[in-house]
Amino acid sequence: MRLRKKHGTIEKITAEIGYFISEPKDFIGNWQKAFPSAQPLMLEIGMGGGKFLSSQAVKNPTYNYLGIEKQEELLEFAIQKAKIHDLKNLKLLWYNAERLGEIFEENEIAHLYLNFSDPWPKTRHAKRRLTSIKFLESYHKILKPNGILEIKTDNGALFEFSVNELLNKNWSIEKISIDLHSKEYFDGIMTEYEDRFSALGEKIYYIKARVTR
Amino acid sequence: MRLRKKHGTIEKITAEIGYFISEPKDFIGNWQKAFPSAQPLMLEIGMGGGKFLSSQAVKNPTYNYLGIEKQEELLEFAIQKAKIHDLKNLKLLWYNAERLGEIFEENEIAHLYLNFSDPWPKTRHAKRRLTSIKFLESYHKILKPNGILEIKTDNGALFEFSVNELLNKNWSIEKISIDLHSKEYFDGIMTEYEDRFSALGEKIYYIKARVTR
Repeated sequence: MRLRKKHGTIEKITAEIGYFISEPKDFIGNWQKAFPSAQPLMLEIGMGGGKFLSSQAVKNPTYNYLGIEKQEELLEFAIQKAKIHDLKNLKLLWYNAERLGEIFEENEIAHLYLNFSDPWPKTRHAKRRLTSIKFLESYHKILKPNGILEIKTDNGALFEFSVNELLNKNWSIEKISIDLHSKEYFDGIMTEYEDRFSALGEKIYYIKARVTR
Repeated sequence: MRLRKKHGTIEKITAEIGYFISEPKDFIGNWQKAFPSAQPLMLEIGMGGGKFLSSQAVKNPTYNYLGIEKQEELLEFAIQKAKIHDLKNLKLLWYNAERLGEIFEENEIAHLYLNFSDPWPKTRHAKRRLTSIKFLESYHKILKPNGILEIKTDNGALFEFSVNELLNKNWSIEKISIDLHSKEYFDGIMTEYEDRFSALGEKIYYIKARVTR
């Protein structure tokens, strides 16, 4: 989702200190301190408007959720959702996923979500895809042993690319689907985009992979 | 492809002794004896009319090809193709893939092809799919260490099922595609069905997996 940039957004967000973390580097190796309870840390990269992550946080109060989004305008929507549900286990960052190593130590994350990431269809942009080797390497580092990476996309080419990139690295793919919503293991929690997309009868691709060390 | 059964087909076929092997059990552990040269043995299960396998045999004379088909009426078409090209490295069997262990020893096959197998869409028929666990176990046995299984299908559900079955067993998936014909590694050799299907602009799913021991 692309939005027009509204001046002053980040200042407004920063005031909502309860949900927004403006200096994520301060928490490296110490993310449990950002939450009232020390619980497994679940990370979504590119959370967009935050529907998926806030729904997860409501459903699973014994996990801590962290959402990263590089488009600052989207953070406002995510913060609104966190406020509505008075969520204690959700924090949000305005951050670029290319520098994960600066805000997470190795083995800090239990579970990582990539939902409907930009497919970057042109071959010359393949390195920008959030499932290209360099990104996968950074996820592998910050995930705990046996940590999980879950990917959803409506883009067949991105699904194919992602599976093949994961096959090349030290990941164990546990499950794939080319029609997630038809599966009994689907938890029903959808992103804004997924909601609209699947209402049109389109199918969702899915990958679940685990770190191996 | 379903065909009306023509009486006497198998008797006619048996006369073409050059290509048809009527007593495959005689060759167990000794398949190289069925060919003029001892070369790696490539097996297609459900070869149908034999277009794919005969094209492979023409293109790669340093491999031996064996085609299995349980519908006897289809063997005639395959034999015609072998005759046209005077192929020395292709033999054909009228056989049911459920009993592979009776005609192959362990480690006899270098490469196994499944092309457009029956998807058996109903869950209660899942065990009949040629990529269900029991079949995969039998392939794993007859394939050599590092032997390869290649699967093509136009059926998304069968693709998904096959990948997940392979993830559960001692196979290493090396590559998948949801649009094989767009890929630079596609060798252009197609089955009869694939030919017609892709002419309609439909996409072909592909899996390449390797035995691990």
